[in-house]
Amino acid sequence: MKWFVFIFTSSLMAFTCFSNPKLSMSELLAQSKPTDWRPIDPANTLYLELTTGRVVIELAPNFAPNHVMNVKKLAQEKYWDGLAIVRSQDNYVVQWADPQSADPSKKKTIKTGKTTLDAEFETEWSAQKSFVKLKDGDVYAPEVGFVDGFPAARDLKNKKGWLLHCYGAVGAGRDTAANSGGGTELYAVIGHAPRHLDRNVTLIGRVISGIELLSSLPRGKAPMGFYDTPEANVLITSIRLASERPETERITFEALKTDSKIFQDIIESRRHRPEDWFKYRADKIEICNVPLPVRTVEPKPVSRK
Amino acid sequence: MKWFVFIFTSSLMAFTCFSNPKLSMSELLAQSKPTDWRPIDPANTLYLELTTGRVVIELAPNFAPNHVMNVKKLAQEKYWDGLAIVRSQDNYVVQWADPQSADPSKKKTIKTGKTTLDAEFETEWSAQKSFVKLKDGDVYAPEVGFVDGFPAARDLKNKKGWLLHCYGAVGAGRDTAANSGGGTELYAVIGHAPRHLDRNVTLIGRVISGIELLSSLPRGKAPMGFYDTPEANVLITSIRLASERPETERITFEALKTDSKIFQDIIESRRHRPEDWFKYRADKIEICNVPLPVRTVEPKPVSRK
Repeated sequence: MKWFVFIFTSSLMAFTCFSNPKLSMSELLAQSKPTDWRPIDPANTLYLELTTGRVVIELAPNFAPNHVMNVKKLAQEKYWDGLAIVRSQDNYVVQWADPQSADPSKKKTIKTGKTTLDAEFETEWSAQKSFVKLKDGDVYAPEVGFVDGFPAARDLKNKKGWLLHCYGAVGAGRDTAANSGGGTELYAVIGHAPRHLDRNVTLIGRVISGIELLSSLPRGKAPMGFYDTPEANVLITSIRLASERPETERITFEALKTDSKIFQDIIESRRHRPEDWFKYRADKIEICNVPLPVRTVEPKPVSRK
Repeated sequence: MKWFVFIFTSSLMAFTCFSNPKLSMSELLAQSKPTDWRPIDPANTLYLELTTGRVVIELAPNFAPNHVMNVKKLAQEKYWDGLAIVRSQDNYVVQWADPQSADPSKKKTIKTGKTTLDAEFETEWSAQKSFVKLKDGDVYAPEVGFVDGFPAARDLKNKKGWLLHCYGAVGAGRDTAANSGGGTELYAVIGHAPRHLDRNVTLIGRVISGIELLSSLPRGKAPMGFYDTPEANVLITSIRLASERPETERITFEALKTDSKIFQDIIESRRHRPEDWFKYRADKIEICNVPLPVRTVEPKPVSRK
């Protein structure tokens, strides 16, 4: 069997060639120090539970504070429990919602959360804000890079910043009016980055684990990938904040800091592709092809006396 | 239920506003004339038959003549019948091969085809060659655009052209040596365009129908998305050239000509996104987000006397 691309190599050259694009990503990650990683805050982490497993979403309150707050409230009031994934459109998005939302007598009541919110398509941006710029440019935005682990763009002239629709991005569905979303219906990108949606939808976070449970769902047969029968909908067992799950049911995640030296080295490595397999090296990379390493951490044993 | 983006609108404004980015894609397609479409040659069309349905691949002999010839021979000798999809890596590729390829005593014999070929990563390119250039630039290539219905790049300085790893692209897997592929193992892109593979693999065509049968397969649990047990492999019933199937079993496809006026209008429409749903219009588009319309045509009734 042929492996058509070698991503991992087994030889480790730890502590050599730092800042050198000749190391593979796994070699670079093997050099990382504990301080290169940031814990992902359980209070900003959603667990989307399906019968097939758990999808984990990191929320982005710095980009969409009101939507994130609303999504947290909806999780706390168990709004999504028993609702469903109602749409799976190939090379585009998976979307979840109340399948009865069109029927006022049957749709689920929203208690403490809000149904709609003003859009948070962009944030105000100051030049001082942390932004790790990618040097290869972008078709859609004046500047792209990384903010706190999220792929983002900025426009310093107009003092705006926004999150990008890369694979795994999670956003708040809406109708035609900009303020018709709010987070009750969410979608995740499961195809080639639909960057034309940037600044048109409020992105609230990104999937950091379990995206394959969404991306491998059967595609819906109705227009735009909606499931064509109630039976085709995919049950959501629950959506909860990680911080509200018992510690024994949590997974502790860490993300590589995107403002670390080692992340820069990874970008250089992925621009250059030093592996022998590559015959032509682009020495460039497009923002949504930059890997954003995340790892799980064994929980500290709880001392029992 | 909220539709978070309107791709289709129902009002048709046929024969007005030609060359105007104010029309949606479906409105533009409704204006197309029969001469805007080219028939897809059954002699350059592969049917990959799975138990779940048919995946249709248009071959690109102008870019990879030797690989395409070999793939045709392999289809003719029924090489893939009974082999399997052995790899499904999330946000990357699905790959098919002989699951027994590592065992000389069990692997399937290749009769008329070749096991390996010299690479066809690029083709020689003359300025006269048909190329419909996309004006928004590209992170990876000096120029990108469309050739005969395929997304492609060119480098006029070095007189080279090559196909792009957009969603649905089909390529010939290989080992580390550039000439270690040949088409016996093929893969299809099912995620964000892995453009770093451009000029590193011989692309032989693209999926024009049924990609969802590949992209929704369960992901493999072994490294790089290989299935971890023989039972996890997905049976390939057969791969055949459309021209070698009985006419009653064929599907006739037409593709919108990428050198047509209406295709330019579609590009402009997808750059601008005139639909009311869009609040921010990028007025730019990245090559792999340009839709390449394909339609099926009812076969002409066969007269029986």
